Amino acid sequence: MDIEQFRKAGYQAVDRICEYYYSLQSRPVVPPVQPGYLIKALPDSPPDTGEDFTAIADDYQKLIMPGLTHWQHPSFFAYFPTACTFEGMLGDLYASSASNPGFNWASSPACTELEMVMMDWSAKLLGLGNQFLNSSGTGGGVIQTTSSDSALVVTVAARSLYTRNHPGTPLEDLVMYVTSQTHSLGVKASLVLGLECRIVDVRAEDNYALRGDTLRAALEEDKAKGKRPFLLIATVGTTSSGAVDRLEEIGQVVQDHPLWIHVDGAWAGSALACPEYRDIVQLDNINKYATSFGMNLHKWGLVNFDAALLWVRSRKDFTDALDVTPEFLRTKEGDAGTVIDYRNWHLGLGRRFRSLKIWFVLRSYGVQGFQEYIRRCIKLNEYFVSLLQRSSDFSLVTPPSLALSVFRLTPPGLKSLDVSALNDLNRSFYARVSVRPDILVTKTMLNDTFCVRFAVGAARTRKEHVDKAWELFQEEAAVTIKEWESKVAGN
Amino acid sequence: MDIEQFRKAGYQAVDRICEYYYSLQSRPVVPPVQPGYLIKALPDSPPDTGEDFTAIADDYQKLIMPGLTHWQHPSFFAYFPTACTFEGMLGDLYASSASNPGFNWASSPACTELEMVMMDWSAKLLGLGNQFLNSSGTGGGVIQTTSSDSALVVTVAARSLYTRNHPGTPLEDLVMYVTSQTHSLGVKASLVLGLECRIVDVRAEDNYALRGDTLRAALEEDKAKGKRPFLLIATVGTTSSGAVDRLEEIGQVVQDHPLWIHVDGAWAGSALACPEYRDIVQLDNINKYATSFGMNLHKWGLVNFDAALLWVRSRKDFTDALDVTPEFLRTKEGDAGTVIDYRNWHLGLGRRFRSLKIWFVLRSYGVQGFQEYIRRCIKLNEYFVSLLQRSSDFSLVTPPSLALSVFRLTPPGLKSLDVSALNDLNRSFYARVSVRPDILVTKTMLNDTFCVRFAVGAARTRKEHVDKAWELFQEEAAVTIKEWESKVAGN
Repeated sequence: MDIEQFRKAGYQAVDRICEYYYSLQSRPVVPPVQPGYLIKALPDSPPDTGEDFTAIADDYQKLIMPGLTHWQHPSFFAYFPTACTFEGMLGDLYASSASNPGFNWASSPACTELEMVMMDWSAKLLGLGNQFLNSSGTGGGVIQTTSSDSALVVTVAARSLYTRNHPGTPLEDLVMYVTSQTHSLGVKASLVLGLECRIVDVRAEDNYALRGDTLRAALEEDKAKGKRPFLLIATVGTTSSGAVDRLEEIGQVVQDHPLWIHVDGAWAGSALACPEYRDIVQLDNINKYATSFGMNLHKWGLVNFDAALLWVRSRKDFTDALDVTPEFLRTKEGDAGTVIDYRNWHLGLGRRFRSLKIWFVLRSYGVQGFQEYIRRCIKLNEYFVSLLQRSSDFSLVTPPSLALSVFRLTPPGLKSLDVSALNDLNRSFYARVSVRPDILVTKTMLNDTFCVRFAVGAARTRKEHVDKAWELFQEEAAVTIKEWESKVAGN
Repeated sequence: MDIEQFRKAGYQAVDRICEYYYSLQSRPVVPPVQPGYLIKALPDSPPDTGEDFTAIADDYQKLIMPGLTHWQHPSFFAYFPTACTFEGMLGDLYASSASNPGFNWASSPACTELEMVMMDWSAKLLGLGNQFLNSSGTGGGVIQTTSSDSALVVTVAARSLYTRNHPGTPLEDLVMYVTSQTHSLGVKASLVLGLECRIVDVRAEDNYALRGDTLRAALEEDKAKGKRPFLLIATVGTTSSGAVDRLEEIGQVVQDHPLWIHVDGAWAGSALACPEYRDIVQLDNINKYATSFGMNLHKWGLVNFDAALLWVRSRKDFTDALDVTPEFLRTKEGDAGTVIDYRNWHLGLGRRFRSLKIWFVLRSYGVQGFQEYIRRCIKLNEYFVSLLQRSSDFSLVTPPSLALSVFRLTPPGLKSLDVSALNDLNRSFYARVSVRPDILVTKTMLNDTFCVRFAVGAARTRKEHVDKAWELFQEEAAVTIKEWESKVAGN
């Protein structure tokens, strides 16, 4: 493809993306395809000679589009949102056109410097303290691919710090802590690193948040067994229910039992942009107690995947753990220490120019535009909760958290159901909802309770989509209850 | 930005990318900026209110463009190339517009299925055996971010396999193997995982390739000490000099001392697309001995960063090591085992839709178009070598490897220089070349020899650019030699 062919294909791509967004509402959220639909439709090897790009672009519409789950659909309430904005796309497009892996300053100065500044801009947007800024010279921020990568980098840094401070500690004695509500990123980091991970239980009466007493008991029990606690991954806004671990209490415990505290705010971190939510997300305690803090602008933060932001109080903890500098990567700027060599702050070497899309988004929205989006999502969830609370058939399982509600069917006519039967009823309800092509929600378990999650975040979601979701839930609930009653009557 | 504003900004971006490629040759390869140039030019916090996108797009030209190292410049001969094609950009643009993290089949069926098929297409392009195909049902392939991620995933899988087969082995006893010429990905994986990595020396007389006898000696020595060897990272086409480890000999050694053999062909793997280079890159031995094989289509393979391909003989080795499936990620398709849940084949959870750009590139180029590009690069390097060999001032340090040459100044008038002085002379030469804005090459050490690397790979490099590079080297060599002689005379 030459330059003029690209111009033509590029215009066409832009037009088709416009068309996609105009038609998004009228598409099913969930594609009506079965496993293997695409494998069957494609040849099993690449063509011998090149094909015309028009045919390729048409096949995207014909073969790929029908098999996409539309995460940007206004009726997508599943998992957590993945932000997608035109500004983000354009940032990625420009970055893609330069295709320069900014693993150190010299390999593309703009990549490193824009990342340094964007991490500081984002820190300020969220209210993080100066200790986390790149301009502090001691702390700093870096873009990772996902929160799992962030957690892995942090776990490596925490382990490395611990073993430097306690030489000779067998890796088998180390133990890291997560809760039963922490994202799988914690367990995955421990699996990857072959380290023990203790999963601390949290209680329904604490709204599934980690309390200081629970942590203290676990630490003391493990230490008595000769274990070496080195890291806690705390969460502000868990995936299941948006629970916020009690950082103030945790901070107190850590005074007696020193630990690296990583605070994962992958989703809820975005709410820190609004001053009125900073108490809920515990900004002051993050600034006071977190050794590192992570959040994803690619979830609820308007920046296209991937943009997992990670800040650390002491950048030396990253570079001490991850610095490998072979001759071919040595530069006079790196040796002088005047610039950040980001390759020593993450797992790989090469990296895309991801700060560009952050720059585009933050400038185009401004702080106020970003706040408006967050507030609208939270208000839509509050509206959903108000509908739910007016109904006698549904109830919240735990208080709503920002733009996330976790609920289930608890029909008054079936009050006598035990925990297990109520879970079965809700599984039937969820099964009905999950075959509907016009909405997507996900499920979870909160301790022993099966629940349905409702997460608002797609940029185009408005009141009418929440209304439509609510109607759909009521409709499927009525059928589920009726079927249940007739099944009971038939027994 | 609304849909029509995006159409306008999108057209503009496409036009400016066209303009970038038209003007690329006339730009400096290396940007004339000093550390801090961009940090100083940007405000230190995000704007309060949104800005017009026209101003933002203009600032990309004004502030970012002057600070980019142009990896796509035809006079870029540094590191290894990072492929960039218009097809790749368009694939990334479409993927970005859907922004759906295909961590399992249901989260976006097309993402998983296209990746499964593209990994098989790529395997066939390169001549990999059926055992590595997804269609085999036992082996398979997955897209990772970088070769470092691939190496890390493989190291985790190999460790996990070893410790499952040898329960109770202390992690401290495990040892993995790389050579002194292996990319830093090996040492980095060991740093990340806290495992011992033995760096085996290779010899100049073996062209810096790992031989069976050296490996055997290292394994036997370590086993005698009670160490537990579990992994070798072998390389076909090292970063420094394109050395190809002797897989046939290694395969023999591993019959006596079982090890996971990961073959890293990050760069040279692309040459496997051409039948005439399959012997050099040892395709038959990869198929026979490799437990896993990795290569980057984003280096010398026409697909924009990131597209690190990783194949494994037994997919179960990945999932046994990395599977974490919390309730909110369970799906009926995943439970049924009919589709691949790619999140259990890599480190993170979310992932971009990267197979799309591979599909676009392989269809648009076809196998023949891909081969033509590889052959052109190798021929250009052969041409460079012919120029070098005609000169008495330069010599190759080791035989050229595909599209890479490693050379240095060895002027006949300075024959009496010892190793250290000759290195100093070459450092002076490299220092002169590296301040030139009109070319970029990188340096390396081959054992004790300081060398300059010349890697051909930018899609727009032609004979005239090699000629220009050669003139420049001669010019700087003349000055370097003259300065050296006058310094010697002055002593």
